[in-house]
Amino acid sequence: MSNYIWVPIVVGVLAIAFAGYLASFVLRKDTGTPAMQKVANAIFKGAMAFLNRQYRTISILSIVAAIVVAAVLYLLSNGDSPTKFDLAWRTAVAFLIGAFCSGVSGYIGMYVAVKSNSRTASAATRSLGEALMVSLRGGAVSGFLVVALSLLGVSIIFLLYSIGNSIDKVPSLIVGFGFGASFVALFAQLGGGIYTKAADVGADLVGKLEAGIPEDDPRNPAVIADLVGDNVGDCAGRGADLFESTAAENIGAMILGVALYLATKNPGWILFPLVVRAFGLIASAIGLLYVRPSVVIEPDKAAGRDPGEIAMKQLNIGYYITCVLSVIGIFVGSYLMLGGQNLSAHNLPAWAWFGLAGTVGILLSIAFVFITQYYTAGTWRPVREIAGATLTGPATTIITGMSVAFECTALPILAIAAALGLSFFFGSQVSIPISVATNPGVINVGGIFGTAVATMGMLMSCAYILAMDTFGPITDNAGGITEMSGEAETVRDITDALDGVGNTTKALTKGYGIGSAALAAFLLFSAYLDVLYSYKKNPTVYSVDLANILVFIAALIGLTLIFFFSSLAIRAVGDAAKRMIEEVRRQFRENPKIMAERVEDRVDPDYARCVDISTRGALHAMILPGIVAVFTPVIVGSVLGPQAVAGFLMVGTMGGIVLALVLNNGGGAWDNAKKYIEAGYLRVNAQGEMIGRNDTTGTVLGKKSEAHMASVVGDTVGDPFKDTAGPSLHVLIKLLSTITLVLAPLFIALHP
Amino acid sequence: MSNYIWVPIVVGVLAIAFAGYLASFVLRKDTGTPAMQKVANAIFKGAMAFLNRQYRTISILSIVAAIVVAAVLYLLSNGDSPTKFDLAWRTAVAFLIGAFCSGVSGYIGMYVAVKSNSRTASAATRSLGEALMVSLRGGAVSGFLVVALSLLGVSIIFLLYSIGNSIDKVPSLIVGFGFGASFVALFAQLGGGIYTKAADVGADLVGKLEAGIPEDDPRNPAVIADLVGDNVGDCAGRGADLFESTAAENIGAMILGVALYLATKNPGWILFPLVVRAFGLIASAIGLLYVRPSVVIEPDKAAGRDPGEIAMKQLNIGYYITCVLSVIGIFVGSYLMLGGQNLSAHNLPAWAWFGLAGTVGILLSIAFVFITQYYTAGTWRPVREIAGATLTGPATTIITGMSVAFECTALPILAIAAALGLSFFFGSQVSIPISVATNPGVINVGGIFGTAVATMGMLMSCAYILAMDTFGPITDNAGGITEMSGEAETVRDITDALDGVGNTTKALTKGYGIGSAALAAFLLFSAYLDVLYSYKKNPTVYSVDLANILVFIAALIGLTLIFFFSSLAIRAVGDAAKRMIEEVRRQFRENPKIMAERVEDRVDPDYARCVDISTRGALHAMILPGIVAVFTPVIVGSVLGPQAVAGFLMVGTMGGIVLALVLNNGGGAWDNAKKYIEAGYLRVNAQGEMIGRNDTTGTVLGKKSEAHMASVVGDTVGDPFKDTAGPSLHVLIKLLSTITLVLAPLFIALHP
Repeated sequence: MSNYIWVPIVVGVLAIAFAGYLASFVLRKDTGTPAMQKVANAIFKGAMAFLNRQYRTISILSIVAAIVVAAVLYLLSNGDSPTKFDLAWRTAVAFLIGAFCSGVSGYIGMYVAVKSNSRTASAATRSLGEALMVSLRGGAVSGFLVVALSLLGVSIIFLLYSIGNSIDKVPSLIVGFGFGASFVALFAQLGGGIYTKAADVGADLVGKLEAGIPEDDPRNPAVIADLVGDNVGDCAGRGADLFESTAAENIGAMILGVALYLATKNPGWILFPLVVRAFGLIASAIGLLYVRPSVVIEPDKAAGRDPGEIAMKQLNIGYYITCVLSVIGIFVGSYLMLGGQNLSAHNLPAWAWFGLAGTVGILLSIAFVFITQYYTAGTWRPVREIAGATLTGPATTIITGMSVAFECTALPILAIAAALGLSFFFGSQVSIPISVATNPGVINVGGIFGTAVATMGMLMSCAYILAMDTFGPITDNAGGITEMSGEAETVRDITDALDGVGNTTKALTKGYGIGSAALAAFLLFSAYLDVLYSYKKNPTVYSVDLANILVFIAALIGLTLIFFFSSLAIRAVGDAAKRMIEEVRRQFRENPKIMAERVEDRVDPDYARCVDISTRGALHAMILPGIVAVFTPVIVGSVLGPQAVAGFLMVGTMGGIVLALVLNNGGGAWDNAKKYIEAGYLRVNAQGEMIGRNDTTGTVLGKKSEAHMASVVGDTVGDPFKDTAGPSLHVLIKLLSTITLVLAPLFIALHP
Repeated sequence: MSNYIWVPIVVGVLAIAFAGYLASFVLRKDTGTPAMQKVANAIFKGAMAFLNRQYRTISILSIVAAIVVAAVLYLLSNGDSPTKFDLAWRTAVAFLIGAFCSGVSGYIGMYVAVKSNSRTASAATRSLGEALMVSLRGGAVSGFLVVALSLLGVSIIFLLYSIGNSIDKVPSLIVGFGFGASFVALFAQLGGGIYTKAADVGADLVGKLEAGIPEDDPRNPAVIADLVGDNVGDCAGRGADLFESTAAENIGAMILGVALYLATKNPGWILFPLVVRAFGLIASAIGLLYVRPSVVIEPDKAAGRDPGEIAMKQLNIGYYITCVLSVIGIFVGSYLMLGGQNLSAHNLPAWAWFGLAGTVGILLSIAFVFITQYYTAGTWRPVREIAGATLTGPATTIITGMSVAFECTALPILAIAAALGLSFFFGSQVSIPISVATNPGVINVGGIFGTAVATMGMLMSCAYILAMDTFGPITDNAGGITEMSGEAETVRDITDALDGVGNTTKALTKGYGIGSAALAAFLLFSAYLDVLYSYKKNPTVYSVDLANILVFIAALIGLTLIFFFSSLAIRAVGDAAKRMIEEVRRQFRENPKIMAERVEDRVDPDYARCVDISTRGALHAMILPGIVAVFTPVIVGSVLGPQAVAGFLMVGTMGGIVLALVLNNGGGAWDNAKKYIEAGYLRVNAQGEMIGRNDTTGTVLGKKSEAHMASVVGDTVGDPFKDTAGPSLHVLIKLLSTITLVLAPLFIALHP
């Protein structure tokens, strides 16, 4: 065992300490006026109640799953009894630890996030800089905990399992950790996604369209449920998603490193992913610390200093700092661990080639930032096209939006294809003195490791990205609290601006999540084939041949699963939203005082009931899609065999990537088309045709216009796309990888 | 050369004569009242004007494409100059003949179809039986011409090209015919699909929603364009689609037969697909002749004899007759041509195994009929779910519809997977004494031929299915003519019922089209690999390995092309519809007399301008998606190589199948949810909740209710899905197959 294993462990512990420091920084801030605290407490209570109930359900499901996995591996896999027993218990324990770590990071991260919202609102009464720092640091607690616990979990299990085992055997013993993390992530994302959109759709349709009250108005019974939903969906859900991304990617890359370790006896190949992730944590921490009040110029509308633009710029600078440091980190890591100059080729040393591969991944993450902005920001064609289509009603709004959603798959996929091809090429330039005994020679080990290094590079900034993501619900809630507690307009300007920035960062995180999942897909798939080879010792396992009818059929089923799963996720939102709509209508009908004309006559609606409806709806509705997602790969692998399930996994993953892009970007574009109109940018000439947003000769069609109504329909349709089905697909495709990795022994035993 | 080649040629000629008989039968019918003729003439003029302009554009594109293909094959492929020249000119000539035959069958078929509508309307004044027979036979002209010309074209070119060639070389020389057919089909379907939906969306949004006039009201300026659109989209478009289906499937199956011919020296393996298709034509003709007035019980509402149910039942009986005869035909064909008992295995003779494989295909076509009905008919859950969602507005209508659309991929794909697996299994039971010299042994020739036989079985009923499809626009137009010429209600009852049946048969045809395309995908893909092997003589070409990074990248791009292409198709409709909406609004605004209160004060709107806008919009908008579809496979194959393009083709095809199911069935379900409401089936109780359609305690929410408005939005969104993008995807996936087959020599030359 190399000493390098201590790097991720020490950095992981330090990162948790750093998260603790950030939490105490945020929690020491004042909690705002009593009015703010009242709203914040209602959100806190609702969020924690949901999380407690959700994690209780997930715990039970996890324990059952761990027992089933252990029993299946013990009873149905090949080998002698002690070997099988060893595999079974280690997988089950790793599964439970993975599930537990994912749960803990989600829970604590969200605890701090929902404590940060009123503090952000309060800070906004003082300055933009302080509000930005409080909300970003509140989000960073979640970000650093997620990455640190994922890294620590994998590193420590690796350390423990390597006692008495040669280290090349260990990576495939810890795949259970990844499966546990995916399992929790699936239900966390599904439950959170259904919760948030049931509340949002309900609040919007009845509140905005029927009752005609603004967003976040305290008279809307679903408003607290909506604010709670932003936390449980974006913070807890996305946190669990990226927890498993990092875990699965680490483990997959370590499995790939085994062949290289066996060839070179350098354990650096196996430990490299963990060390690079540790470097990424350091880079993210430095990037995060850069964002502080002293670098923020305070806004001044008269001088053209828009608070949103200022905040976005600072977040971007922090991100670029993280990226630059990541590039340095990946070159340093390659130099130290991947044999230095020893494996040089083509006049360049190996570390330079792998460093370049890692840089490709980092560049891909930046490319995704720009592409996502192009498709979801109001300054570009796609959103403006949708805004223009609202002039002819909701039908053309939807048609144009679907057209944009389908279109927006092209650029990201080309970027992913280029990144995969380039990083594979860079990796394949490294000549690795691999022996025929350990490697059948049918695959290009260096090239595949190159794609793994690119994935590592992309995921180095994960903690920073997650901080920006959780920044989203915190600022959204701060906006809601400011609105509901009736603060001054200057304060609302700041929280509204931060809320807008948060919408952008949430969209970026989704792009980042799907981009890294796409990049990781090839390495996870290759890791699965490595695992098959380790059992079968037959080089033909490395060929997943689509011309084989079973592979073809499995691939077709994999693609269909993606659509069917999305259908279940969307339907779950529809069902839960329907109950919410009925409840909100009932409250307005039975309690007219909620909408009393004079403010002093008004009574508060029954927020708790709406929270409860969302909670029960989400917990109930997440079960069926979850079960379908877990059992389909098991059935396909058991019936059609290990090669067929590889085809299932691969084409299913491709489908998941493409459909998630459609759902995420389509939803984001509709959302921002609505915001475009609400911001007063939709102008028409005398013939009713759309003209430029700054062309003052036209008439502005703003809130409550027919066009706005149509845009609200588009936004509502996009809600379950971008916040439930799309993000759940991220998790699904990684679950497919980890489940096939864990159950490979079963598939092989059934199809010897 | 075997004498069997004369079977398809003789039957093909007889089928054309039969189409001529049907045409003269229809044309001899009376053309109705002067009011009917006036409308019918306007439709005829619009349809023919569009078709003339469209085919002129397609002709130019085809000639350019033929020259380019010939030049590329001559200049860039491998081999000596005479071989290359031979390949180049034969491919180009076959291409042009394929394009020409496709065009001719579309043109004549549509000529008769638009001549049948007023005759059907007139027949409806006399009896349901006569109206049914006239409209079905009018549609059958197109159906029989399409299949006969496709069969004759392939057979005659085969006969001619086999002069001086050994017949195993011929199938790959005639792939150009399939490419020509796909090329025309792509533009015919795109142009027709864009035309019909631009007109439909425009007519619905302004006419129904804004002006509040019923469908097919003569005051709507877009009404004639809408009626024309039904013809050019459903009749000409779907005809071209299935023309190329049958052509590509025939050629692909013949290529697969080459290896079996070389092994057994029995030319039956190569000619079998043509003979089976000929048997299918006979079966379809008998099924069609069954439907005649003497078997139709005239409707009587009082006695519960619904005209729609009666008509649907007769069409179904005719279809089942065709299926039963097809089963017999495929067993007989197998017995005569596939070596009889000589190749027996497992105690069953070879012909029995292949007969069973063919039966699987026929059963799949029937399964698709039921699945499509389940998802798009108002009697089942999916449509009723959407109808229920209209109660909470357009947003939930769209969300529920998308959920249904995504869901409806599961059953068809499972049916396809089962059919592929079973037919492969049946085929692989035949032990074929194949020599290692001619077959590398890496593939299961019998199994793959089994899937080909299943596809042949499914496509045997093609002429009948196409007759039912074109029946759709004829009855739709007859309904419009009856409405616009102010006929009595009893007549309208019949044409409305036939129109409703036509909607069902159109949906069934789309299901049939995608099902047969899916089944054919595996055989076309295998044929491509056979072609690669014939050049490279290296058995590794038979493995399309997804673990190869280039194949992986190409597959990802293939899947993305499907979405991007759909986006372009949908956007094209949006653009053309927008111009239509503006024109209709302009006419209402500038000429208020159109909507004058008293009928005698009214003036006709300017129909011709709307027809012209649709025509120009469609011709202009079909170019970009067409170019993208043609060039992407060329670029992928040239850059990434022949194996990668196989992955591109395969995963792209899977994506096309799944997305076409989503778009077709989603659109169909929205359409029928609207019809469900218009039929007065949507009932709510006092709490506003949906109750059973026959529960008379509730209130009916019918036309002009809020729920109906929402359902119109859903229908409008579904229009470009089901009639433009979805059907165009059918064509696209087959184009990908034929283009890679034709350009295989290029890809091999660039990647030796």
